[in-house]
Amino acid sequence: MSKEILLLSGPNLDLLGTRSPEIYGTTTLDQHVARVRSTAAAHGCEVRHIQSNFEGDLIEAIHAARGASEAIILNAGALTHYSWALADALAIFEGPKIEIHLSNPAAREPFRHVSTLAGVVNGSIAGFGALSYDLALEAVLRLLA
Amino acid sequence: MSKEILLLSGPNLDLLGTRSPEIYGTTTLDQHVARVRSTAAAHGCEVRHIQSNFEGDLIEAIHAARGASEAIILNAGALTHYSWALADALAIFEGPKIEIHLSNPAAREPFRHVSTLAGVVNGSIAGFGALSYDLALEAVLRLLA
Amino acid sequence: MSKEILLLSGPNLDLLGTRSPEIYGTTTLDQHVARVRSTAAAHGCEVRHIQSNFEGDLIEAIHAARGASEAIILNAGALTHYSWALADALAIFEGPKIEIHLSNPAAREPFRHVSTLAGVVNGSIAGFGALSYDLALEAVLRLLA
Amino acid sequence: MSKEILLLSGPNLDLLGTRSPEIYGTTTLDQHVARVRSTAAAHGCEVRHIQSNFEGDLIEAIHAARGASEAIILNAGALTHYSWALADALAIFEGPKIEIHLSNPAAREPFRHVSTLAGVVNGSIAGFGALSYDLALEAVLRLLA
Amino acid sequence: MSKEILLLSGPNLDLLGTRSPEIYGTTTLDQHVARVRSTAAAHGCEVRHIQSNFEGDLIEAIHAARGASEAIILNAGALTHYSWALADALAIFEGPKIEIHLSNPAAREPFRHVSTLAGVVNGSIAGFGALSYDLALEAVLRLLA
Amino acid sequence: MSKEILLLSGPNLDLLGTRSPEIYGTTTLDQHVARVRSTAAAHGCEVRHIQSNFEGDLIEAIHAARGASEAIILNAGALTHYSWALADALAIFEGPKIEIHLSNPAAREPFRHVSTLAGVVNGSIAGFGALSYDLALEAVLRLLA
Amino acid sequence: MSKEILLLSGPNLDLLGTRSPEIYGTTTLDQHVARVRSTAAAHGCEVRHIQSNFEGDLIEAIHAARGASEAIILNAGALTHYSWALADALAIFEGPKIEIHLSNPAAREPFRHVSTLAGVVNGSIAGFGALSYDLALEAVLRLLA
Amino acid sequence: MSKEILLLSGPNLDLLGTRSPEIYGTTTLDQHVARVRSTAAAHGCEVRHIQSNFEGDLIEAIHAARGASEAIILNAGALTHYSWALADALAIFEGPKIEIHLSNPAAREPFRHVSTLAGVVNGSIAGFGALSYDLALEAVLRLLA
Amino acid sequence: MSKEILLLSGPNLDLLGTRSPEIYGTTTLDQHVARVRSTAAAHGCEVRHIQSNFEGDLIEAIHAARGASEAIILNAGALTHYSWALADALAIFEGPKIEIHLSNPAAREPFRHVSTLAGVVNGSIAGFGALSYDLALEAVLRLLA
Amino acid sequence: MSKEILLLSGPNLDLLGTRSPEIYGTTTLDQHVARVRSTAAAHGCEVRHIQSNFEGDLIEAIHAARGASEAIILNAGALTHYSWALADALAIFEGPKIEIHLSNPAAREPFRHVSTLAGVVNGSIAGFGALSYDLALEAVLRLLA
Amino acid sequence: MSKEILLLSGPNLDLLGTRSPEIYGTTTLDQHVARVRSTAAAHGCEVRHIQSNFEGDLIEAIHAARGASEAIILNAGALTHYSWALADALAIFEGPKIEIHLSNPAAREPFRHVSTLAGVVNGSIAGFGALSYDLALEAVLRLLA
Amino acid sequence: MSKEILLLSGPNLDLLGTRSPEIYGTTTLDQHVARVRSTAAAHGCEVRHIQSNFEGDLIEAIHAARGASEAIILNAGALTHYSWALADALAIFEGPKIEIHLSNPAAREPFRHVSTLAGVVNGSIAGFGALSYDLALEAVLRLLA
Repeated sequence: MSKEILLLSGPNLDLLGTRSPEIYGTTTLDQHVARVRSTAAAHGCEVRHIQSNFEGDLIEAIHAARGASEAIILNAGALTHYSWALADALAIFEGPKIEIHLSNPAAREPFRHVSTLAGVVNGSIAGFGALSYDLALEAVLRLLA
Repeated sequence: MSKEILLLSGPNLDLLGTRSPEIYGTTTLDQHVARVRSTAAAHGCEVRHIQSNFEGDLIEAIHAARGASEAIILNAGALTHYSWALADALAIFEGPKIEIHLSNPAAREPFRHVSTLAGVVNGSIAGFGALSYDLALEAVLRLLA
Repeated sequence: MSKEILLLSGPNLDLLGTRSPEIYGTTTLDQHVARVRSTAAAHGCEVRHIQSNFEGDLIEAIHAARGASEAIILNAGALTHYSWALADALAIFEGPKIEIHLSNPAAREPFRHVSTLAGVVNGSIAGFGALSYDLALEAVLRLLA
Repeated sequence: MSKEILLLSGPNLDLLGTRSPEIYGTTTLDQHVARVRSTAAAHGCEVRHIQSNFEGDLIEAIHAARGASEAIILNAGALTHYSWALADALAIFEGPKIEIHLSNPAAREPFRHVSTLAGVVNGSIAGFGALSYDLALEAVLRLLA
Repeated sequence: MSKEILLLSGPNLDLLGTRSPEIYGTTTLDQHVARVRSTAAAHGCEVRHIQSNFEGDLIEAIHAARGASEAIILNAGALTHYSWALADALAIFEGPKIEIHLSNPAAREPFRHVSTLAGVVNGSIAGFGALSYDLALEAVLRLLA
Repeated sequence: MSKEILLLSGPNLDLLGTRSPEIYGTTTLDQHVARVRSTAAAHGCEVRHIQSNFEGDLIEAIHAARGASEAIILNAGALTHYSWALADALAIFEGPKIEIHLSNPAAREPFRHVSTLAGVVNGSIAGFGALSYDLALEAVLRLLA
Repeated sequence: MSKEILLLSGPNLDLLGTRSPEIYGTTTLDQHVARVRSTAAAHGCEVRHIQSNFEGDLIEAIHAARGASEAIILNAGALTHYSWALADALAIFEGPKIEIHLSNPAAREPFRHVSTLAGVVNGSIAGFGALSYDLALEAVLRLLA
Repeated sequence: MSKEILLLSGPNLDLLGTRSPEIYGTTTLDQHVARVRSTAAAHGCEVRHIQSNFEGDLIEAIHAARGASEAIILNAGALTHYSWALADALAIFEGPKIEIHLSNPAAREPFRHVSTLAGVVNGSIAGFGALSYDLALEAVLRLLA
Repeated sequence: MSKEILLLSGPNLDLLGTRSPEIYGTTTLDQHVARVRSTAAAHGCEVRHIQSNFEGDLIEAIHAARGASEAIILNAGALTHYSWALADALAIFEGPKIEIHLSNPAAREPFRHVSTLAGVVNGSIAGFGALSYDLALEAVLRLLA
Repeated sequence: MSKEILLLSGPNLDLLGTRSPEIYGTTTLDQHVARVRSTAAAHGCEVRHIQSNFEGDLIEAIHAARGASEAIILNAGALTHYSWALADALAIFEGPKIEIHLSNPAAREPFRHVSTLAGVVNGSIAGFGALSYDLALEAVLRLLA
Repeated sequence: MSKEILLLSGPNLDLLGTRSPEIYGTTTLDQHVARVRSTAAAHGCEVRHIQSNFEGDLIEAIHAARGASEAIILNAGALTHYSWALADALAIFEGPKIEIHLSNPAAREPFRHVSTLAGVVNGSIAGFGALSYDLALEAVLRLLA
Repeated sequence: MSKEILLLSGPNLDLLGTRSPEIYGTTTLDQHVARVRSTAAAHGCEVRHIQSNFEGDLIEAIHAARGASEAIILNAGALTHYSWALADALAIFEGPKIEIHLSNPAAREPFRHVSTLAGVVNGSIAGFGALSYDLALEAVLRLLA
């Protein structure tokens, strides 16, 4: 039976490809997910993807992942910078947790230099555009191996 | 065909008229909207109004406004002071965007002196009570003219 | 006719009993509520309980409590530390309002030292684990007596 | 007899039209004043305009307005960010007082995020370029009505 | 043999009933103590009460409580906000320790937002006036049960 | 020949008696000066008084006082809180220099807690209303004796 | 019957005349008190003087002054900079309260720039050496007249 | 026809030679100007010098320099540390702008470490006493060459 | 001809395997490098590795990489947190630059939350232990493809 | 005649040996003093030891040491971090003054990183447990030699 | 015999001409040095130039300059912003010391607004590009004359 | 066989005896080392001394001390205040580590109040001049005994 990996996308990521393409690129979220899903399948993993603009949805998706998913890859969008509730939710999940960003928040506006999630994830990958997703998947596959 | 203007109201604004009337006045939100709608109609504009206590609803309303509304007038309530996700959503909308407040946040508690939205709106109007709505509408009408 | 007390539980509290038991104990939220409800019943009060991982739900529950509930006991979870919208909602409710915490936030991470709610509640009770709920109920019963 | 509105312009505004036109536009201060004056006249109001690069002149103009003008519209330029003496002067004037800015200071350099005047004005209008003047006049007319 | 509970009152609390009654109520300290003592007696506990305006007295009372009292209820008055020596003393006592306040310090002046004691007590109860004492006693009785 | 004492009054003090009488009292500046002048005359001193809303005027009055006046009593109004140029001017004057305030700035808004002048005056007298003037004069007379 | 004025001296002031004479002068505390007492007597007032190196003693002296003394002149020494308990005590006394300092704390080390007392006294006099005492007495006599 | 260079001197610089000679030297402002003027003349440049203790005068001198002077050398005195209006004025002038100081502000009191002008000048020269003027002139001559 | 990738290791990394193995793991630096080198070789890339405890060596290695290496992978150790000179050096290199860390600095001591390099790298990978190296190599290979 | 050395112990040090032995060790204060006294005696010095939980006692012990003791060794406990009055007292004593700590405050909680005493002592010795006392005595003996 | 002037260049300055030419210009360091050397020679001075990317080299060059060089001109690159060791070294050298920068650090990133060197140099020259070197040399020649 | 103690001296300490003798004394580093070495020899210990102005040298000396030296005495000079790499190196060494300073950094400039090393050493000795070395040696001998 294949392992499930939860891929979470926070606020405004549904507009990837449209939103500030000079920062975030022209690939859509569906395209990112399809690519990740295809690579994961080749390694016998299934990717469950949830995008929401609601903090509460993301929290509940993490809750539901306990006992169901093996790992979480999370791009929380701007919630990264103030949602302590999301951080508390992540802290409860026991498998590998990876924070990813398309751009490098530490090189942008000061408010993006703070991450509520940094203290509860295993690692973070930031600044590689589409590649951030691929690297995170590879990291998960390696951590689960 | 008439132009659509999106009027957004954030958390707790559904209680306008009841909530701290010494600060926010006794006019209800429906009354504010009716007045704005009536004035807009006289200028051939339609006002689409959405109030929500959910950050996610406001974000999605802004997303949906792309290609549908010509401008956004936004009173984000207390989300103004910490919702960077709302700011990211606004940044994606290309038409005129106006931040309004009934009271003057800069003259109240320190936490209200910070606006996550200031950097992504065209302008802000604050402190005029009901009149803030009228001025914002006039601004939009003039910017769209 | 019995008086209604609104008991509100914020994000991640649905996992009480599972989440960091060394901090929050092994009692589940249902067990906390059952105990509070039972004690309240003995004093002729009904407890209405709402747990949500959505800030908006909590705000609307507080709005709905106006004219329906006599008092509010609120454990807002991590929203305590950044949700000014929740604070604005509480400020509108006129009955007794009590902020509770299972652990003592002032003795944990720095981000938990800030409470947006402190300025709008009657009092706060923190650090007593399950007992925090009982003390809060007793406080409400005494304030309503 | 017509009502007098005092329009005050602070340091460097005499160069409007020339100064950073990409920020402040190409309209000169005289053109702004003429337009405001014309609109005001149509509503039976007279606009008294004073521009000065001296903090003291602005303070004395405000003093003189007591008993003479019905309202003050003030674009204090960079004095907005450090002149507590100007704020003290405004606090003494009892009629409507409106702070305006052509650009949106909250979206520019950090030093422009502080306003000494915010605590003593009725409201503020910022970021609409020439339109800021028109909106402020409309606000005054409505407040005096 | 009955258990002893140490009730400690810091600087200026000897004037309760007189001092700022709009904040602290009109009940005197003796009345608070009598009420707590009477309730405690009903549960087979003796209350030892010490009020002092001297930090040193409070520290020594805590030292003496080791091996003599089962629990400490402490209203340290303004020492709460700067006395690290008092915090060090409390840290040595091994039984339950509860910080109480009549008013809610977190809702008053900024200097009252800091508690040196928060890190070394089991829990805190604040903002309930006279009721704060009763709740603290109940907490102690429950913790000792 | 009588000694000259320079009494300096900064921005907005020309409106004393009118401005926030609940804070500053109902005595006019002329009345303060007349009283000081009369007392000084009884001790063989002449009071030279200059009020200006211009920082530059106050600086030049201090310059001119060198070699002409024996001492300076200065109520700089809100310039106290940001005018380092005024502080530099005072530093040049070698006789006794006294900073006075009608109200007690340290008990008012945070911006009034900073004094640029504190480091260059001999002493300060604040919070005594009209009496602040009399005490400052007495101080000068004693320092010059 | 003569009026009583309480003169309070905080930590280390018993060594006046010896301690850093270049800052505090060579007059002993007894000499300061004798001079103040003599002047007060000439105005029909009695001076009660208490020096203590214990915060608790000063607090209790202020408590005892209620109903006994007409006014308080207080040089709290270094307690000025951290004793919020002393500030709380002063807040309870209803007559005139004056904070004095021999040197001008605002012109010395940063830790001396903070006064816990500033918010609860009527006024402050600082930097005049021995004369600070005389001016404070005069202020009290005038305020009591 | 010779080129004009504007040399601006801010508050208190009229007392150079007298003011704190251990910091600023004994050369008077007239002597500095004469020396600069003489060197400039040898290079076919005319120096226009304006000293004022009024921020407004300096701003207007900069305005007037547009189209008249080729470059500005500015010693703004203490205005350097808070006059954002002066900075705004300088930003409008398009030729070379040089900030000079006799002493090295970065090595003096903390308030002198902030320069409002740093962001709008071409370069700064500080700490060389009289030589600062000569170096600034040389810089201007080289930049204009 | 194969492409060269520069792998840089900063202070104390020569002790990997020995140093705090509970944080950094038991793999030695040589083992990390061998693994990376082997993977790179399989993709036709050569890895040039330099470890130094000297900031200057790292700077010069980056300088030398211009025109010689295609990309840089850098684990700067504690220099990450204060070496602005290293950041300046990286800014000059035009190829892909990746910052890696074995542990997740954002989840450790506050001084490790600051990265001088964040603003000049393409992306960062942190918290994956040995895997951080592999992910960085994959990122480089993909970026160079 | 033997020289006297004053050894001062602040709040909570009377519980040494009992209090947090993992931090402070199991040696009692009496044992520390006996050891120091014995070593001192061997060098012809007498140790006068005072422990108090009262700031005032410590201040007065320092006052009394003037003319009586040759040097002071002071472990002020938590008073180290806020008692400016103790610092003022120490500043008056002219002989060698040494601040000691059993643990290394700089490696503990942030509030222990501040020392009010650092600016007025000759030197400090921290982190050596019992040995801190011996080193301090040796330092005093050498300084007095 | 000619006087020696030490010209020191810190990290990354060896790449001048290549590095961010829009900020630092296209002149190479060798060209700057050659020009300075040639001008110095015309005034009978020899320029000793040392560039290093190692803080230690710069410190030792300053040590060696004692007794050998008459003055130091130092462009410390990014070390300017954190190397207190370099500042300590400069403080030991007794001749004229000048800090130079090609760009104006005060107008760039916040981390460049701090200079560890400002407190120990005679003066600073910043923002003139190549001309900064020439002005510094002229300053040295004049100071040594 | 004798035990080895590593004595490390950081930047600028090679100039001891010459550098600011009013702060650091006139004893040279060689003299300090000779004295320490002689005392150590008497206790059967060998002192290995390394002075370097290079952070990298100090780091490597600490690395080399593992398995070779029993203890480290370190005077890191100004590196104490910013070298986190040096702190990381010290953290790896398992024997006793002592931080020493000739002067008392806590009583000097603010930048010297921060120690990167405090958290990783056993103890610190500061302010005793030459004696700091002797006390540190004694501490090491006692800790190794």
